[in-house]
Amino acid sequence: MIPLEDFIDKYKKKIELELSKEMDRQDAPDSLKKAMKYSLDAGGKRIRPLLVLATMSAFEKDCERGMKTAAALEMIHTYSLIHDDLPSMDDDDLRRGKPTNHIVFGEALAILAGDALLTQSFSLISSSDLSSDQKIRIISELAKSSGPEGMVGGQVADIEGENKQLSIDQLESIHLRKTGRLLQFAVLAGGIMSEATAAQLHHLEQYALHIGLAFQIRDDILDVEGEEEEIGKPVGSDQSRNKSTYPALLGMDKAKQKLEFHILEAKKSLSALQFEQSLLHSIADMIAKRSS
Amino acid sequence: MIPLEDFIDKYKKKIELELSKEMDRQDAPDSLKKAMKYSLDAGGKRIRPLLVLATMSAFEKDCERGMKTAAALEMIHTYSLIHDDLPSMDDDDLRRGKPTNHIVFGEALAILAGDALLTQSFSLISSSDLSSDQKIRIISELAKSSGPEGMVGGQVADIEGENKQLSIDQLESIHLRKTGRLLQFAVLAGGIMSEATAAQLHHLEQYALHIGLAFQIRDDILDVEGEEEEIGKPVGSDQSRNKSTYPALLGMDKAKQKLEFHILEAKKSLSALQFEQSLLHSIADMIAKRSS
Repeated sequence: MIPLEDFIDKYKKKIELELSKEMDRQDAPDSLKKAMKYSLDAGGKRIRPLLVLATMSAFEKDCERGMKTAAALEMIHTYSLIHDDLPSMDDDDLRRGKPTNHIVFGEALAILAGDALLTQSFSLISSSDLSSDQKIRIISELAKSSGPEGMVGGQVADIEGENKQLSIDQLESIHLRKTGRLLQFAVLAGGIMSEATAAQLHHLEQYALHIGLAFQIRDDILDVEGEEEEIGKPVGSDQSRNKSTYPALLGMDKAKQKLEFHILEAKKSLSALQFEQSLLHSIADMIAKRSS
Repeated sequence: MIPLEDFIDKYKKKIELELSKEMDRQDAPDSLKKAMKYSLDAGGKRIRPLLVLATMSAFEKDCERGMKTAAALEMIHTYSLIHDDLPSMDDDDLRRGKPTNHIVFGEALAILAGDALLTQSFSLISSSDLSSDQKIRIISELAKSSGPEGMVGGQVADIEGENKQLSIDQLESIHLRKTGRLLQFAVLAGGIMSEATAAQLHHLEQYALHIGLAFQIRDDILDVEGEEEEIGKPVGSDQSRNKSTYPALLGMDKAKQKLEFHILEAKKSLSALQFEQSLLHSIADMIAKRSS
């Protein structure tokens, strides 16, 4: 098995190349392309597309076939960040230490760049080298995961939950939709492209559910204990915004226990798949320990 | 042949029923569904989905099979209206005589309702009763027509053209992308679902190109000569916004001649298809004469 660091090094570059090829190919107004590229190029961990490819690698499939689907997923994630940062939403001026899209390009172009990335992601999948049946399954899952029943619904619930004391169940339900569904899509898409069985897809979804919650808990912990330079935003920003978080609701110790619990559950799903020796296992560990 | 009025009466209701069934089925936050439904229910001519079905009818196909694709297209159109009306874009308070989405639900929910409708449209097509090959062709065309190379790109060019004196070619290029591409998608989708040949699809696209331009010229003429009550917005609003229009660039007489020219060209494409007796012919006439 290739070590996770090497896999990330190799495929992060390939994903970024795929995104940049897709943008170069497009016949769209320059200003729009510039705004789209600005956010696509803003870096980040590329955890979602890497999960797509790591899943294919767990099934010993050729990751190249998943490249367009992986890039499409990163486009969806990027659009969601652009729209979330808008003044009428989270009103963020900085993202990963750089000015947000609407700060650089203005609100109108930021909204349209988001719309364009969202739309283009479906075009990218439909142009990929998969069977029509696979493409339709993937498109259907992507639309469900990112639409009103998934990510967009989660963002609505998140906004409505601001300045309210949420229960831990409510908080979890928001995270499951806002970030969890797209992580689940990543492993589902990887599984579909690897011709996984329904039972295997189920275990993959469970794995993603647990690493998704772990990811969010780690995020909340970093907001209290992290280094501003590493996390790219001010420490304590959740608290200053009155956001419900795991440490705030459970206390720091229990939040950390919950993080451990979800990582263990994620690994149990991998056992069921006999994927203990896979990159997905290393990714679970990476999420538990990440510092940015 | 069923008269156009009867066809519209019958299928407008069916399209609206399809949209409402799709919304009822969705497991999303109530506020989000309310905002989506508000704009979907706001009426309008439903010209795009009707074109999908009228094309199938011209091929003597069962329109029922096209209902989900037709509804998906109306979702895309509706999302584009919601986002276009936003304060950072056209900043419109009224649409079809009713307060715009962001006036009623606030900007954040309006942006998210648009995102949700855009995403859901792809889900709706992928759930339709078509072959996977047909679905992928339709999804690919829809994403291209409505994305950065199509409608979204046209909206960017439109915003950038404000308060500038455009040439007639520039004006045309904006309209072709901003409204033309989605009308072309309508007949293409109808054609694909009717198993049209490549030559037939080409003529259908030409037809849609010309009725699209005719539609826009008629819009500009109505903005000068129309009745406020019928068009649902103040007469002269283009002029007061300093927008380039056909009557402003060409004079009213030449604008009317150009309208006639495009209707004739549209009908020529129908001749090539031997569709002179079809609803598409009546739709061309309707566009030339519409008063709202």
